[in-house]
Amino acid sequence: MSEKTASTKVLSRHSRALVEWAVGLTFEDLPGDVVDRTKDFFVDWLGCAIAGREHISVKSMVEYAKAMGPVSGNCELVGFPDFRTSPAFAALVNAASSHVVEQDDLHNSSMMHPATIVFPTALAVAREVGASGKDFITACVVGYEFTCRTGEFLGKAHYEKFHTTATTGIIGAAAIAAYLLRLHVDQFESAIGTAGTQASGLWQFLTDATHAKQVHTAHACAGGVFSAYVAKSGLLGSVEILEGTRGMAATLGSEDPQPKYLDDALGQKWSVLGSSFKWHASCRHTHPSVDALIGLMKDEKLNHRDIESITSHTYKAAINVLSLSAAGQTVHQSKFSMGFVLAVAAKYGMARISDFTEDALLDSELRDLQSRVSMVLDPTIDAVFPEKWLGRLIVTTRDGRTLTRGVDVVKGDPEWPLTRGEIQSKAISLGKYGHVQDLDVFKRTIGRVWDLESQSPLDIFSFA
Amino acid sequence: MSEKTASTKVLSRHSRALVEWAVGLTFEDLPGDVVDRTKDFFVDWLGCAIAGREHISVKSMVEYAKAMGPVSGNCELVGFPDFRTSPAFAALVNAASSHVVEQDDLHNSSMMHPATIVFPTALAVAREVGASGKDFITACVVGYEFTCRTGEFLGKAHYEKFHTTATTGIIGAAAIAAYLLRLHVDQFESAIGTAGTQASGLWQFLTDATHAKQVHTAHACAGGVFSAYVAKSGLLGSVEILEGTRGMAATLGSEDPQPKYLDDALGQKWSVLGSSFKWHASCRHTHPSVDALIGLMKDEKLNHRDIESITSHTYKAAINVLSLSAAGQTVHQSKFSMGFVLAVAAKYGMARISDFTEDALLDSELRDLQSRVSMVLDPTIDAVFPEKWLGRLIVTTRDGRTLTRGVDVVKGDPEWPLTRGEIQSKAISLGKYGHVQDLDVFKRTIGRVWDLESQSPLDIFSFA
Repeated sequence: MSEKTASTKVLSRHSRALVEWAVGLTFEDLPGDVVDRTKDFFVDWLGCAIAGREHISVKSMVEYAKAMGPVSGNCELVGFPDFRTSPAFAALVNAASSHVVEQDDLHNSSMMHPATIVFPTALAVAREVGASGKDFITACVVGYEFTCRTGEFLGKAHYEKFHTTATTGIIGAAAIAAYLLRLHVDQFESAIGTAGTQASGLWQFLTDATHAKQVHTAHACAGGVFSAYVAKSGLLGSVEILEGTRGMAATLGSEDPQPKYLDDALGQKWSVLGSSFKWHASCRHTHPSVDALIGLMKDEKLNHRDIESITSHTYKAAINVLSLSAAGQTVHQSKFSMGFVLAVAAKYGMARISDFTEDALLDSELRDLQSRVSMVLDPTIDAVFPEKWLGRLIVTTRDGRTLTRGVDVVKGDPEWPLTRGEIQSKAISLGKYGHVQDLDVFKRTIGRVWDLESQSPLDIFSFA
Repeated sequence: MSEKTASTKVLSRHSRALVEWAVGLTFEDLPGDVVDRTKDFFVDWLGCAIAGREHISVKSMVEYAKAMGPVSGNCELVGFPDFRTSPAFAALVNAASSHVVEQDDLHNSSMMHPATIVFPTALAVAREVGASGKDFITACVVGYEFTCRTGEFLGKAHYEKFHTTATTGIIGAAAIAAYLLRLHVDQFESAIGTAGTQASGLWQFLTDATHAKQVHTAHACAGGVFSAYVAKSGLLGSVEILEGTRGMAATLGSEDPQPKYLDDALGQKWSVLGSSFKWHASCRHTHPSVDALIGLMKDEKLNHRDIESITSHTYKAAINVLSLSAAGQTVHQSKFSMGFVLAVAAKYGMARISDFTEDALLDSELRDLQSRVSMVLDPTIDAVFPEKWLGRLIVTTRDGRTLTRGVDVVKGDPEWPLTRGEIQSKAISLGKYGHVQDLDVFKRTIGRVWDLESQSPLDIFSFA
């Protein structure tokens, strides 16, 4: 049964330009800082994946992989050294585990978390095809461009309805797999089309602290792998899934999609350089307020008991997302409660992963201060979001003062990235959280990442 | 790492009532006509799956299953006798193959195709767990209720944006797998929640005749299987994914969602009895007009050359969907072109699968008549859609007459179902189309379906 497609005269489209650029990209095209930052985020991601491996959502997906997948394979699950599988299942599980502890990177202007999509997919497919370290890095850079640019294109109205990490994630995962499978331009575009029509991810989980966040990244990565493999076998995906009249922007809540973001300054503006490390262990929307509070308390020599109230001036997307978890009933929700997070930061001077625990949920001092935190929409701050994630606090003190502090840049932002020492230290701390048995082996693995481009084929996973 | 969910005081909700009903349902609760109709649709579905097996979208998924899945398993791919796999991959492929030739059933009031979701999922999981024929049938009935009721709940505004077969399909597939895995009520609801947050399916493919339709059903079934299995292992899905403030109805374009449809008259009103067989091989939206035209031409003794013009009065959803493929450039699109389909019906007195071919696309007589067909929105017809799929034609003749014909019921509708003889004859004709090697074996398989409830465990797939 042969079947032609409709005449698809391909016009000059922004998404097509992005695909054509990706197909032609080689490691030699990448500036040194792009290569370095990609490796930085890979180390950061490894820590996140290890830290999340004991979560029930991850364990349940490992069981699923064992029930549905092959009994052996080329692809590792981070933190599960006794099991290898096929790329789809490896991408599925690693995507879930690296999106558990709220410590993975965040790309500001696209409002999505790239690493939890990029590295699971690239690692799985690279291992399957025996790709070199250089090709792996290049595929990751392609993944950053597709996820982040799609997020910028879809915009903040889309983000208000959909978990953008999921919806742009499947696009990025398809692009990574398509790159590593060496699809030609039309096949690559088919992969993007097949991915886009499977884009999904609702915010409902924030209201009841269930595990869709991990399902979203898992589906995005596994679905992206699927989309590229079937494209290679001839399945045709829509050529205009992003910009088309019945495509993603038109259907999934975008209000003013900007196709120009898809191919703006390709090869000059690198999305991986626009992503932020997370230093605090809470939702990224809380970070400007956290940094403002810590700075203000330090300068004013305040103790958390000195604080009468805190008003966080922020942007609409933060209020939308954080309001869904405002009560902070669970550990996960507490990282999404502005009040609880600021209470933690006030009490401990930081907001580490070890500060969000079942015990902390029962800390009446934290709960009391939480109740005296409010958020207000600040039109000035909202106007520049998501290009800038600004924050401004007004703190009243028990002794009657009113203090104000704003921040433009938070620690971990592209303008203030973590050092390699900080990155390694954060990863090791996450490794401890995830009960890595032999930290020295983990450290040696990290050491090998810094020299990733010398490996051919890629083979770093001796640590377990 | 233990994690609680937010306090989920479960209110009396319609979706919860549906889950509770499904968990308690047994074969003995099913009226005889429900059992019989389910078997009828199963035979009808077998023909569809065989007929679609040679399509490139299906072959590419078989390759994917071989690359990613296990090398052996309990679950058959219809039409691929040399390969068995795990439930996720069997559901994936069989869902794709049974949604190729536009001959699978259609449930009017939900605007979705249940069989292509229900049978792939139920067959795969039933075979994996060794379910009896009775449990298989009951699981299929559960699948009809979840898919169809979710479609009625989401409504026609949702259908205008999303391919409802896909979005409700993943809900139904999760319910089927949850039923066969014997999940308790909370786990079952988690499965539905995890499925719903992965609901996707855009109409973009209609504009360029690409293969998303098969991707949609494949993803729905495989995603539903995933959702139930991980729910059994403890992954928590949102409890209000259908009705919640950030759930499917709220986010995916519903304008007036009616939760009452989810549990209205459970055990009295059976969705499987509301589904329609497709007699013509074109999009179901064309069938009222096709039947009107055939009836009118017969009564007036018209030849297709007697027709000057045809105006099809129809509802908005038909115009929306059919307009996307109006030119009918490919065989698949031609089944979605009202003009082309009516031209075929006028010329041949029917619209069989063998009438839509590459040669037909080049038939100038068909193309000429196609150009003289138009659709107009009829507010009276639109007002009762989707409860009724009515049609009315105005035909002008070369000799100057203006003739009108309306239809209330089309052949295959619940009010005018196919006989078992017609069902079997249609399935065999589809089997021939799919190049079944030994039709006698296929006929014997059909014979075994009529006695399905006597099998324990289910085992009908000796035909190949």
